[in-house]
Amino acid sequence: MPFTLEDRLAVAELIALHGHFVDDGELDRLDELFTADVVYDLTDFGQPPLSGVAAVREAALALGAANPVAHHVTNVVITSWTDDRAQVRSKGLGVRADGSCGSVSYQDTVVRTPDGWRISHRRIVLRRIPLGGLSEPA
Amino acid sequence: MPFTLEDRLAVAELIALHGHFVDDGELDRLDELFTADVVYDLTDFGQPPLSGVAAVREAALALGAANPVAHHVTNVVITSWTDDRAQVRSKGLGVRADGSCGSVSYQDTVVRTPDGWRISHRRIVLRRIPLGGLSEPA
Amino acid sequence: MPFTLEDRLAVAELIALHGHFVDDGELDRLDELFTADVVYDLTDFGQPPLSGVAAVREAALALGAANPVAHHVTNVVITSWTDDRAQVRSKGLGVRADGSCGSVSYQDTVVRTPDGWRISHRRIVLRRIPLGGLSEPA
Repeated sequence: MPFTLEDRLAVAELIALHGHFVDDGELDRLDELFTADVVYDLTDFGQPPLSGVAAVREAALALGAANPVAHHVTNVVITSWTDDRAQVRSKGLGVRADGSCGSVSYQDTVVRTPDGWRISHRRIVLRRIPLGGLSEPA
Repeated sequence: MPFTLEDRLAVAELIALHGHFVDDGELDRLDELFTADVVYDLTDFGQPPLSGVAAVREAALALGAANPVAHHVTNVVITSWTDDRAQVRSKGLGVRADGSCGSVSYQDTVVRTPDGWRISHRRIVLRRIPLGGLSEPA
Repeated sequence: MPFTLEDRLAVAELIALHGHFVDDGELDRLDELFTADVVYDLTDFGQPPLSGVAAVREAALALGAANPVAHHVTNVVITSWTDDRAQVRSKGLGVRADGSCGSVSYQDTVVRTPDGWRISHRRIVLRRIPLGGLSEPA
């Protein structure tokens, strides 16, 4: 099947749904977002990758009260695609219970499955310094 | 009329417009967002529902300087629809003058009217604790 | 060429890409966002407008560590369009290294070019007070 406008909207909604499921505590629905063998690349956090939906769910539960109270996803851009696979960049904003925020970038691979689009690979990079560390030549 | 891709985009823009109208002080345009008899469900805040556009406008004005300086809407997902009605989940981020943020979830019913899509029912839920309060089994 | 659904999605992605390029330090790609002669209206900040992509890049570099660590773009609404030009309202949320946030509104003119859609004029307005300063009649 060709990658249609409907696919573009479906992929954008897939990326957006993550925030709803996590913040509403619907962790039993993560299989609607991720492939069973999803790889969650946390290299930027100095952690090994998580493998599989169950590992992602357990990591969220283990983080517990240290999770943000809300996950807002913005800047969803589908940067390339074939019929059954696409690369997506987006940005995640985490709102903490104390009103402070943190920001990450998501780099996702999404794939078409018989049940719809799913994220098969997600790399998360924390935004620590402006301009990705770029600075003016001295 | 069937619910088309154009309708999906129109509904997403409708949800997004709310932040512009409120933050730009265009409260006289709220009838472009809501049906005349909109119900604003504030049960989660321990308040009775607001009924009608005028009541929504007055509530915003009454809140005055305690309003956020900006309302960012993200994670817009149309979860179900018929030809003339749709259910929409989205997330609202309020930025306060002191730089702190708060987050709510919106659960909207939108309806097709002769003037375009309008929100006929909005339920607002404040995000207070991570994972919607879900915790690991002890 | 008529302004199609594909154009609407392309314009929305153009607006969204800005945050990725800036936060990832890809300032050498700003010509994928802006026309060569873009005007950046900073009147609301008491500054003269920036003219041209190079000036926008230099301003970002000059701001250096005072830049937000992340630029989230939300509430993208295409308010009017002709075949080759559109007006777009969106909202920008800047996340600072200390976890605090600030919010601006963008008012953009985008134009169709042989290389795709580009922003030819951007006006930035800082959100300082709620409801755009609107208050209840005394």
